Amino acid sequence: MSKEKASENAAIRLSLYLRYLKEMREETRISSEQLAEFLGTSGARVRKDLSYFGQFGTPSKGYRVGKLREGISKALGLDRVWPIALVGVGKLGRVLLNNLAFEKSRFHIQVGFDVNPNKIGKTVAGVKIYHPYQMPKIIRKQKIHIGMITAPAEAAQESADLLVISGIKGIFNFSSAGVVVPSYVKLKNVDFTSQLEVITCYIVNDQRFHLSRGN
Amino acid sequence: MSKEKASENAAIRLSLYLRYLKEMREETRISSEQLAEFLGTSGARVRKDLSYFGQFGTPSKGYRVGKLREGISKALGLDRVWPIALVGVGKLGRVLLNNLAFEKSRFHIQVGFDVNPNKIGKTVAGVKIYHPYQMPKIIRKQKIHIGMITAPAEAAQESADLLVISGIKGIFNFSSAGVVVPSYVKLKNVDFTSQLEVITCYIVNDQRFHLSRGN
Repeated sequence: MSKEKASENAAIRLSLYLRYLKEMREETRISSEQLAEFLGTSGARVRKDLSYFGQFGTPSKGYRVGKLREGISKALGLDRVWPIALVGVGKLGRVLLNNLAFEKSRFHIQVGFDVNPNKIGKTVAGVKIYHPYQMPKIIRKQKIHIGMITAPAEAAQESADLLVISGIKGIFNFSSAGVVVPSYVKLKNVDFTSQLEVITCYIVNDQRFHLSRGN
Repeated sequence: MSKEKASENAAIRLSLYLRYLKEMREETRISSEQLAEFLGTSGARVRKDLSYFGQFGTPSKGYRVGKLREGISKALGLDRVWPIALVGVGKLGRVLLNNLAFEKSRFHIQVGFDVNPNKIGKTVAGVKIYHPYQMPKIIRKQKIHIGMITAPAEAAQESADLLVISGIKGIFNFSSAGVVVPSYVKLKNVDFTSQLEVITCYIVNDQRFHLSRGN
């Protein structure tokens, strides 16, 4: 196993490798070059990406699809179920609740928090809503590791702080405000506007950018 | 102006710099170090990021907030309005239409496409729905540069191909399928599941990752 550390891009590629492998038969063998070709990367990169997370076979002989799939799934944490805590039951929060509340899904919202007294104690899409001050107790008790912030911008940082105090390890921030979290918490800002701005920045300045594949 | 090329991360930081500057008064001056501190990066990185996109003042004297804001806005394409074409008027497509169809917004969905004959010719949130074969004609005529794919996975690549043929320059792919586009088209995959997998990958393998700030 490599002593070097993985980057976020390695995790993204891992997820893409798996998607590709899902369409292949279990007994087949696949070389790192074949896997690389699909993503437009190199065989060396594939071998390195895999080496961060374990030993998946002998690269020189090609990987066995079934074993590789299993190893990557495990590295991605897909061998378990991930309950999620949602903070902010507004418009977007409800969209997420209506789409991500199925208990059988690998990722599902299990509990919601909102300061609005009219929402507290109610159930949305089968998910119970509590006051944010109950976060640490409920999140720890229900062993939740992922939080989603759909609170208004001005409440985003406070929501993040409460999630961190509650022991959350990964945060999706859907609010338009940036939040700061300790480096041991993984933060993803899912800010639509800033993603749109990246695209328009490319369109306006296309000759100033490296050409690269999208992610 | 730098001869070097910008990366996507430079564009993301640009968008974050702007957000920070919006909270400051126009007449103030700000140094690259101050701007850097907010993002946890270095002054040199800020100066380099800015240099890709133009001349925004004299770094040694500090930048004038108003001028810097204006320059960054322009580099991000925020001095104009961006109509968007949406492909796939299903559940998610409707959520986007209901939230992004306001003509006054800088980013707004201006036209929709769907193969379902019951939807063609109808209007959703004020947006007219057409058959995908009309894409090239309508998108060119309406001078649309951004496309969003909310079609089912099996129709994702065809939707992308049609958008590319229509002259679209940036694509948001919300479908769960990966799509391939020419390198001159900027592609953003907004695939929720794969973003969740990146977070769980971190949680499962935390000691195997570089610690880094989220984006």
